[in-house]
This record gives sequence, C-alpha cells and structure tokens, in this order.
Amino acid sequence: MVSVSILNVTSYTGLELLRLLANHPHFRVTSVTGRSAAGQRLGQVFPQLYALAGGACQEEARHLAELEIMEEPEATELAFVCLPHAAAAEAVQALLQRGTRVVDLSADFRLRNPSLYQEWYKHTHPAPALLEQAVYGLCERYRERIRTTALVANPGCYATAIILALLPALSAGLVSRDLIVDAKSGVSGAGRGLRLDTHYAEANEDLSAYSLGGHRHWPEIVQELETAARAAGQTYESGLRLTFVPHLTPMTRGILATCYAELQPDGSGRLPTSSQVQALYRDYYAGEPFVHVVDQPPHTKWTYGSNHCLLYATVDERSGRLLVLSCLDNLVKGASGQALQNANCMFGFDERCGLQGGAIYP
Amino acid sequence: MVSVSILNVTSYTGLELLRLLANHPHFRVTSVTGRSAAGQRLGQVFPQLYALAGGACQEEARHLAELEIMEEPEATELAFVCLPHAAAAEAVQALLQRGTRVVDLSADFRLRNPSLYQEWYKHTHPAPALLEQAVYGLCERYRERIRTTALVANPGCYATAIILALLPALSAGLVSRDLIVDAKSGVSGAGRGLRLDTHYAEANEDLSAYSLGGHRHWPEIVQELETAARAAGQTYESGLRLTFVPHLTPMTRGILATCYAELQPDGSGRLPTSSQVQALYRDYYAGEPFVHVVDQPPHTKWTYGSNHCLLYATVDERSGRLLVLSCLDNLVKGASGQALQNANCMFGFDERCGLQGGAIYP
Amino acid sequence: MVSVSILNVTSYTGLELLRLLANHPHFRVTSVTGRSAAGQRLGQVFPQLYALAGGACQEEARHLAELEIMEEPEATELAFVCLPHAAAAEAVQALLQRGTRVVDLSADFRLRNPSLYQEWYKHTHPAPALLEQAVYGLCERYRERIRTTALVANPGCYATAIILALLPALSAGLVSRDLIVDAKSGVSGAGRGLRLDTHYAEANEDLSAYSLGGHRHWPEIVQELETAARAAGQTYESGLRLTFVPHLTPMTRGILATCYAELQPDGSGRLPTSSQVQALYRDYYAGEPFVHVVDQPPHTKWTYGSNHCLLYATVDERSGRLLVLSCLDNLVKGASGQALQNANCMFGFDERCGLQGGAIYP
Amino acid sequence: MVSVSILNVTSYTGLELLRLLANHPHFRVTSVTGRSAAGQRLGQVFPQLYALAGGACQEEARHLAELEIMEEPEATELAFVCLPHAAAAEAVQALLQRGTRVVDLSADFRLRNPSLYQEWYKHTHPAPALLEQAVYGLCERYRERIRTTALVANPGCYATAIILALLPALSAGLVSRDLIVDAKSGVSGAGRGLRLDTHYAEANEDLSAYSLGGHRHWPEIVQELETAARAAGQTYESGLRLTFVPHLTPMTRGILATCYAELQPDGSGRLPTSSQVQALYRDYYAGEPFVHVVDQPPHTKWTYGSNHCLLYATVDERSGRLLVLSCLDNLVKGASGQALQNANCMFGFDERCGLQGGAIYP
Repeated sequence: MVSVSILNVTSYTGLELLRLLANHPHFRVTSVTGRSAAGQRLGQVFPQLYALAGGACQEEARHLAELEIMEEPEATELAFVCLPHAAAAEAVQALLQRGTRVVDLSADFRLRNPSLYQEWYKHTHPAPALLEQAVYGLCERYRERIRTTALVANPGCYATAIILALLPALSAGLVSRDLIVDAKSGVSGAGRGLRLDTHYAEANEDLSAYSLGGHRHWPEIVQELETAARAAGQTYESGLRLTFVPHLTPMTRGILATCYAELQPDGSGRLPTSSQVQALYRDYYAGEPFVHVVDQPPHTKWTYGSNHCLLYATVDERSGRLLVLSCLDNLVKGASGQALQNANCMFGFDERCGLQGGAIYP
Repeated sequence: MVSVSILNVTSYTGLELLRLLANHPHFRVTSVTGRSAAGQRLGQVFPQLYALAGGACQEEARHLAELEIMEEPEATELAFVCLPHAAAAEAVQALLQRGTRVVDLSADFRLRNPSLYQEWYKHTHPAPALLEQAVYGLCERYRERIRTTALVANPGCYATAIILALLPALSAGLVSRDLIVDAKSGVSGAGRGLRLDTHYAEANEDLSAYSLGGHRHWPEIVQELETAARAAGQTYESGLRLTFVPHLTPMTRGILATCYAELQPDGSGRLPTSSQVQALYRDYYAGEPFVHVVDQPPHTKWTYGSNHCLLYATVDERSGRLLVLSCLDNLVKGASGQALQNANCMFGFDERCGLQGGAIYP
Repeated sequence: MVSVSILNVTSYTGLELLRLLANHPHFRVTSVTGRSAAGQRLGQVFPQLYALAGGACQEEARHLAELEIMEEPEATELAFVCLPHAAAAEAVQALLQRGTRVVDLSADFRLRNPSLYQEWYKHTHPAPALLEQAVYGLCERYRERIRTTALVANPGCYATAIILALLPALSAGLVSRDLIVDAKSGVSGAGRGLRLDTHYAEANEDLSAYSLGGHRHWPEIVQELETAARAAGQTYESGLRLTFVPHLTPMTRGILATCYAELQPDGSGRLPTSSQVQALYRDYYAGEPFVHVVDQPPHTKWTYGSNHCLLYATVDERSGRLLVLSCLDNLVKGASGQALQNANCMFGFDERCGLQGGAIYP
Repeated sequence: MVSVSILNVTSYTGLELLRLLANHPHFRVTSVTGRSAAGQRLGQVFPQLYALAGGACQEEARHLAELEIMEEPEATELAFVCLPHAAAAEAVQALLQRGTRVVDLSADFRLRNPSLYQEWYKHTHPAPALLEQAVYGLCERYRERIRTTALVANPGCYATAIILALLPALSAGLVSRDLIVDAKSGVSGAGRGLRLDTHYAEANEDLSAYSLGGHRHWPEIVQELETAARAAGQTYESGLRLTFVPHLTPMTRGILATCYAELQPDGSGRLPTSSQVQALYRDYYAGEPFVHVVDQPPHTKWTYGSNHCLLYATVDERSGRLLVLSCLDNLVKGASGQALQNANCMFGFDERCGLQGGAIYP
C-alpha cells in the first residue's frame, strides 16, 4: 500500500478524498492535517465516517474514523494538498523536499506564468521555481507527463468542465477565437467555509451570476486551450477571446458549462453539421474512461458522485453556432476524483482504481 | 368592481392570478373554469385558498374559495385565459364576440405572422383575423395601445426577461445583431401538468439545458426586438442572429437570463464603458414601476413573488462584450403579474394595483 | 403615521418586518439599527429592498432603501426589538424609559419566572422588574391585555405553532398531561448568523433532530399551556409531561408541529370522535383572522409568506390518540407577522393591517 | 456469476439495483423487464447508465446500458421483483415455479396473515400458499432462514427504519406497549410514477403529514415487533399500541424515524439511564455490518447512497421517555440495498458484496 497524507482534510475536497480512498486497493491514508481541528479524530469532525464503508473495507473505515488530525503531515509517499492558494505552495515545497509526491488541489501550480498568478491571485508566487516541474493534472491531455512527475497541479472545477468541452473544437480549428461560456455550479464549489451567500436560506431557491469582473479560472482555461490549439497546429493569433460567466445554482453538487462558439466554414465555405461535430468529439475522447460524448443534453445529476464528465456537442441551426454542454460533479471529476485519477496515473495504477462508483440517481 | 373570469384556473398561472386578485381594489373574480375540476369549488382544488387573505379581504378570500369551477365561463367584463395554445384562441374568439375584454396568457396572439405560428406551434392558427387587433402585452413598450385594445397577448416568461434585457441596447444601436442568451428557469415554468422531468426526484439537484432545437419563445423575442430596433431607427438588416438556450434549474420560481452581445464601436472607434451602458439602461427605464436597473448582479430571489424585473448591464472588460443580466419571477412578471399589469392598463387603473407586494426574502 | 424603529434590522426577522411594514397604512419605519452594518443604507445591505414595493408604496420602498442603519435607535412611538436575548432586555429597558412601546421578538420577556429564564438561558435576567408588565404576545389568548401594554413578548416560532395546536384540547380537558410534539422547521428559523449546520451544502438534502437535551421553547410552551388549562378550569395537577423534539428540514421557511396526546374518556367512558374534536377546534378559533381549522392535513407551503396558522385535529382510530397538526411560516406568524399583529393590537388598528397577503403557492 | 433478472426495472428501486449490481463480483444482470418501456435498451431509458461505472466494470456498464427491456423475464437463478403489489405476487409465483429464487420488493409476502393483507391492500392475496415459505428480509433478524429460502419479502422502507429502531428496546422489555413513531421520508419513496404531490413545484419547500388514516407499513411493523418481543420472552399482552405518522419531506432520499416510547421501571422502580440504553443498543447490533449505534443524533445525509442504518437512543430526562432516532437511505437500506444484502445472504456471499460505497457527503 502506498502511504498517503491529506493536508487540510476538513475541506470538502479533503472529505471527498476520504470517501474515494476508503475503498482504494493501493492507497492508504495514514496522515491527515487540519489546523482548526487539530487534535480531534476524523470521526469526530465527520461523524458520517463511521458509516463510510461496509464490505471488505470496514476496517479501513474504522481506521480512517480514528485517525488523529495533526497540524503537520507525517512522512508519506503521496500527499493531496487541499489548502487554500499560497498556503498550498508553501506546503508543497516542504513535501517535495522530503521526497513526497504531491497532487495539489489549489491553484498555485496551474498557471505556468508567475506574473499571471500575481495578477489574478494578488500574491507573489511563493515557489516559482517549482512551476517548471508541475504538470497540469488533466489526464486526458498530459497522461504521459503525469506518470513521472512529482507535482501535479489539479485543475479547477470549472476549468475541467470547460477545457474538456472545448479541446476537440479548438484542436480541430473548428471554431473561431470567439468563445462564450456560461457556467453553473452547485454550492459545494464555494467550499466549506462560512459565508452569507452559502447560507441555506440565501442560496436556496436562488440563482445568480458572480465574478463578472473575472473569475480566477479564466487564465487557466485560456492557457490550456491555447496550448492545446497550438500543439494541434491551430493558430489563434491574437489569442482566445473568452467571456466566462459563472453562476451559483441551488444544488449541492454539479457543474454545467454551456459553451458557445462561432463555427469556421471549411475550405468550400460550408459549416460543419451536428453529426460531423459529434463524430469529431467521439473520436477525440475515444478510449477515455471518464469523458463520454452523449447523444442528448446531459444532466448534472447523471454525474452525481461519479468521476465522469459528459459532453454534448451540436450546431444551433438557426445561428450556425457550435454549442457544447459539459457536465460533471465539481467535487469528483472537478476536484478530488480527478486528483485520485492523477495519483493513480503517477503511481502506475489503473486510472480507474477507486473511481468505479456510478452516479447516484435519482 | 369589474367582473373577471379566469379560464383554466387550475393551472399555476390561474392560481397565481387568484392570489394577486384577492386583494385587488377594482377587479372581482366571478367566474372560473377548469375542465378536469369542473363541479368542484376552488377551495377543494386549492385548499390553501382558505388561507389566502386576511385583512379587509377575508370575505373576498372566502368568496374565492367557494366559487364553483365551471366548464364554460359566465359573462364578465374581463377574462384571463390560461388555456394551452390553440384552445386559447378558440376561447378568446368566443369571449370577444360577447364583448369581454381578454388578456390571453397563451402564445396564440403573440406572433403577428400566422405562418410563423404554424411553423413553431405545428398548428394552423385558429383565429388569424384577430391577430390585427391583438397587442403584445409588454406595458413598457405598448402601454398606449394596451389602454384601448380588447385583446392583449401576454408575453412568454423567458421572452419578458430577455426583451426587457435587450431593448435598451438594441434601440440605441449599441450592439451588433449577434446575440446569445443563456436563460435559466425554475420548474414552475413547466406548468402544473405531470411529466417525468418535473418529478421532484428527477428535478431536484439537477440542472440541464433543453429545447436546443429551438424554444418557442425564440420567434417572439426576435419579433419584438427587431420591431423595437426598427422603431428606434436601428437597422439590423439581415435580422437578429439569436442563439437562445433555456435551462431547467432546481427551484420553484425565478428566471435569470444572461445575455451576451457584441458592442459596436462609436464613430470614433471606441467601445462604450460600463458606466455609459448603465446610464443608458437607467434612462431607458426611468419611471417604470416594475423594471429596475440595479448596480450589482441581481438574484432571482430578490424578485420571488413580486412583479419586478431587475436588470444589470455591464461590459466584460476582457472581451469588450456587453453582458446583461435579467431576473424576474416567472409566475408574476413572467405571467400572471404582467397579465394583471396589462388588465390594470386596459381598464385605466394604476398599473400597480394589486401588485404592491415585495419579494419574499429569504 | 406611527413612527417605528427596528433594532437589529439585519436579522431575518428585521428584514421580514421591513417587508410587512412597507405597505402598512399606519406604521412608518423611521429608524433602524444594526451594529455590524452601522453607517450603511438599508438598500446596501438588502439590495432586494429597491424592489420591495410597487403600487402606492413605491416612495415608501425608496424611503426604506435609503434609511441609514444606526448604532442606536432614534426616538419613535413603537420599536420592534430583534436583538438576541439578554441584549434585547437591555435595549427594551432603555426604550420603555423614553416612552417607546415595544414588541420584543427575543425570549427575554416570555417566561414569567426569572429563575426559569436563568435555568434555560444560562444568564441572570437583565430586567426582572419589567416581567410584570410584559404580555405574552399571542393575540388569540391575550388580545385585551396587549391593547394596553407597553411591552409585548413576542412568542417563539415553535411555541406559537404548538400552543395554538394544543390550547383547545387542554382548555377542554380533552387530553391527559402526556404530550409529545415532533416539530419540524425550515432553516431560516436558525437565523442569519453563519454556522456550519446552516451551510447550504450541509443542510440541503438533510434532515436531523436537534436539541434533544431540551429546546428553549419548552418552558414557554409549558407555561402557556398550563396557564390556559388552569384558566379554563382544567387541572393538570403534576403539570404537563411534554416531550418536544425539533427537527431541521431542508427548506427555507415553514414549521410543521405534529402533536400527539392521550384522549381522556368522558363521563360515560367514551373517547371523543374525530368530528367532535374538529368541532371543538373550530369553535375555539371561530372569528380568529389568522388561525384556521382545516379539514385535511395542512402543508407548510399553504402558509408560505402569510400570517396564517393552519390546524388539523383528528383521532388516530387505531390507538385512540389525538393528533393535531399545526403549520405556519416561522418568519411570519412565527415571528415578524405576529409581531405586527401585536403592534396593530397595541395601537388600536385592525389586527390584519399589513398582513393581507396570502401564501405564495407554488 | 449468478444470473439475475430485475422485473420492472424502470422503477426507482429497479434503477438503484442496477447501480448497486454494476460492480458486484458475483451477480450479473442478464434480463430486465418493464412493460411501458419494452423494446427499448436500458441506456435509452436511463441515459446516465452509460456513465454508470468506470474501473474494471466499464464493460459491465456497457452491457447494462445495452440490455433490452422485455415484457417477460428470461430464466435466471435470481430475480428481484420491483412490481407493484398484487402484480408482484403473480410474477413471484411464476418465477418460483421455474426454479428462480426471488427477492420481492413489494409488500405481497411481508404479512404472514393473508386476511391482514386483504384489509390493508384491499385485495385478495393472489398466492397465499407461498406465504409459508416467504422469509421477511431483515438480515439482522432472519439471517439464518434467508440463507436457505427461495423467497424473501423485502421490508418496506419505513418498516426497516422503525423495526431496527425498536427491536432492542422491545426485545429487552425496556418499554411499554405505547409507541409513537413520527417518520419523515424523502420524495423518492413515493416512486417514479407521476402524481401531483411529487411534482417539483408542489413538493419543494413543503412539508406535510399523510396517511393519517393508516399507512400500509403499520401492520408490517407491528407484526415484526410483536414477533421479536415474543421471541425474546417479552409479553405485550394486548399487543402494541402504535401510532405511526409519515411525513413527506423536500429532499430526494432519506428517512428519519423519530420514535417515542414509555420506559418501564426496573424491579427497583428505577428508569434506565441514557447510557444504559445506549449500551443495550450497541450490544444488540454488535457485529452488524449495516446497523450502527452512533453517539449523537444522526443526519439522513450521513447515509445518502449507502446501505447503512444509523441509530441513536437516549432518554428524554424531562419526561422519562425513550427516544430513538433512526436514519437510512430509503432506496438503499430501505429497498434495493437491503434486497441485495438479502440476495448475498441467499447465495452464501458476504452480505457486504456490492454495498461497500459510503455515504456521499455533502
């Protein structure tokens, strides 16, 4: 068993990692940290842990429930870092120095350009020297590099949904640089911290747009889409012109990104058809265990609790625009599930280990 | 008191009319129909009616609760028609013939072009001769004509939110013909009929896009926006190029339309700023009792149960696009409240009569 | 117009008072306090206020939105105190001294016995001398005394639902002293403060019992039920034996109290029938504007946003027990609506003023 | 692999069985029926199936998605019957005749007394001869008999929660015959059929009691509790006096049963303490894989998607009554999970096979 630590386990991403790792055949959580809850046992902070798992793993569930939350992690072979940005980078640096491989769920190592980090996170990057070795943790793009790296920067939840939605179109030069993404997220995406806008009475029966001045996943999305397009030989010379508006939705889990793009006519001036677009998408993700091109508009609920991302691509006949719908569970494929997929990849395990559960529906 | 009938009172829009009319100083409901519930009293079908109103109106509440639901309406001065399309047109024809003025909440008289009706509703228009006299019931646009007409075509819920959002920009020639509207609605917008997709267990914790092949509010939105632009001297020569994607959201009431448009540079090649756009919007709706330009992204919940539409307009600095957010309660300003506003206008009452209640928050 | 102040207006009960008072014909809010938001205008803290009211009251809505939140209230004829317990008593004392009449929404003046207060609230009562003059603000019981008092202690939300449910049975000696009340509340009952258990992601799709060691509304319920029974000549010699278990329910508003009691046989050893019980309940509340005995199990949603309490009483044939179901909106009849009903009563207005709105359904 | 059929797979319990069986090491679904959807593939009816499982089971997921729904089941070793009562009994008879072992999720074989069945289900029992061999499928009670039977009657969802909650107290003679159970269920418990009361707009933000005249799980609960008490040597001579009131709660999954009972004093006239009660409960369920006695009031959400039942027992100090709280997921331990637990038991597999997943939280 590979020993694993989770830093800031009291976050929702930390808790979700516990759920996913409880039945993992090769990883074993042996150290957890969480400053505010230090000294308590995991089962005190998350009473539901006592019922986390039956089956062969019941002893494992008991083991987890009785783990003591520490201020600092013990030495392990792998660490999942669920700390807020900046704090994460500091912790990652220390972990790498002692030889621990790291999946960092914060934003600290996602942007390759530290000045972009400074612009968006209002903070000098704490460990710019590590940016070189960090790999953006989208297995669908960087599987090979993830296998050998010591540091994976796990993508943002919106970024995952949107990048997966637009990669095929941009890599094929199917669309122009003009992109609009209207994304909707459940409330767990805002984290476990206490804020008025996540108070039940405020968030229930409510819908609103936020971060109109610029959401922090914007540069990450643009970086990855431009890189992929370039790698595929597509030139978006002045860069992508992306408008990205996130919305808060009254549900616990789930992201739906509705993506609008201008189709480019082919050599003979014709626009691609819906079925051509769908075929292109199916080809692009053929063989991927967690990305599925479906044949009708997907529902977020079809991914509830699972690591799957569902895509639907079609052409709006009336306007000739490309529409791509992308659904996932923000805490699984959008965070902890993808982190585990990355870890599986880093340690040479089947990417699907521990991620077999289907969506809970209804 | 003006006598009022409600046809198909057992719909959500019928029920909402009852709520709004219970305290109205000038209208009195004296006849209600509803084929499936004919013979029952209103209070049997809607037990909550017995508690509809205290105050000076308690007798009125009792009166409503004890009204018998009939198959056909009795003679009244005003009728609200909440029937499905096609059935509505038949009923409207009969009502007008006997001299009743009508607010029709169906789609039957919204499109001025009967062949467009046939295309979108798959049905030959049952009463094309009446189209001439029907006025599209958006007081903010057609107040003068509504005052004197015998037939108001009450706008669709999405259409109301979207037209109000884009009228100022299109009338001022602020944007190009390229429009994208990503709209989200609560489940009551789907009506009171039984369908699997409005089953609680299916709709709860779920989000999805629908009607990607074309939602029926599309032609109504385009008709009204093009008419208004033309009236304001703006030429959108090849017509508007609108992509409109509606989404079903896990909440009972509320619509949020997120509208994206390409700003046009002015004579000197400059794009308008956010504050210029906001000033333009404020001017456009100055004096309107139910349309408010707010200074931060509005929440649907700020309109829960009220007849207000809240607008927020801003420029996305990164892309130079115009963003307009529009919120309303689909059953009030999006349906029955607007119907009452129209009726007030038709009968020369203050448009705000019976619509004084603010949003219920939280 | 009677001038009104609201202390701690930034609470949900304060906000609900603003909604209800916006259309009131005789009360006008002229002063609001809220320590954390002092210096801001009401419309900044509650942006939805700008859309609070159309109709004749639009100027009033604007007036409210622009009121400045102060640290201390200005002199008014009436004050609604929405402060937490203990802080409330201090404020009430000062208000009464300057001649302001007060409706206190806290628990400070509900218990007539200050040592009981100390036991349940872990705090020496800050103003025991005022207990004598305080009237428990249940108009259905104390209407006459409320008319002339300067200090009303507004009942707790659970207490209102439960006392109204059991008054008729206990006053008639219909049941024994053995009472079990299983009560369920929406999340707004927990207030606007930030707590992990009201975080949307925790409270959504969740149901749990709480305060099993004793909820603070217990002594208030027992006090009022025993007093009423005694006044009606019923002797419950060893006092009531009440088990009261509250539950947190995933909805914003609403309380449903399910009350179980042991029916007492009459002189000839027969138990009362359901129809006898229902007749007794109807008689008891005949003429009450806000308490309604309905003929089927009521839904909390039938009271959403209204000041009504709906009761249903029946006999469980299998066990011979009495069941009483009681529904209300915890923020209206359970708090601010009842506070306004009390204020109307204190100032000689119709109790129903400002409370005409029916439930919003669906 | 044991071949498995699911009858009426288009129900929620059928769908949940598919989810649970997708990763099962020993069972393989080879035949599914569903009259209304006959001729379609499973993946057409449940598009989320295409994303049901990654991991080693992806082929299995594909296999499931492509299964054709038939009118009649093919021959299998095991069948799960998800048909409505009466139809279920007919199908079970045919299955048993051809040698298929059956877990019946309907109510048809739960009541040992066919006249009780007639009284509660208004229907002559279609196969009374089979009642003898049917075993009530509560492994915690009948594990030994389930191992060898050909017919398991899977308990009702409420019945499971309530029987598990009260078995220890009644078996120990801790309480009198006077029982009150206030139970709350999520909406999926009402099934996938279309009804107005499960329409999202009706059920959302609503809470109500129902079946006050008697819920059909009542006789099943009484039968099992009386049998268990008798077996443990406790005499409740006039039988149990149970009041059971179910409530519909605005959430998709979850049952919480709040149980109230009168403690019996021991020989020396003393009532048991909370810690004595808790110890008794812990002992009773020691070693059970799916019943857990927790040390604080459990939340339904701690069981979301898992097969666990969480119990909390305490003494209400003020009244001396016993309180037991019982939580489970109505579709898992309350239906399909328990059905699988029974099937595991029937075929000699570890009861926990396929039921390893923990609760999804938040």
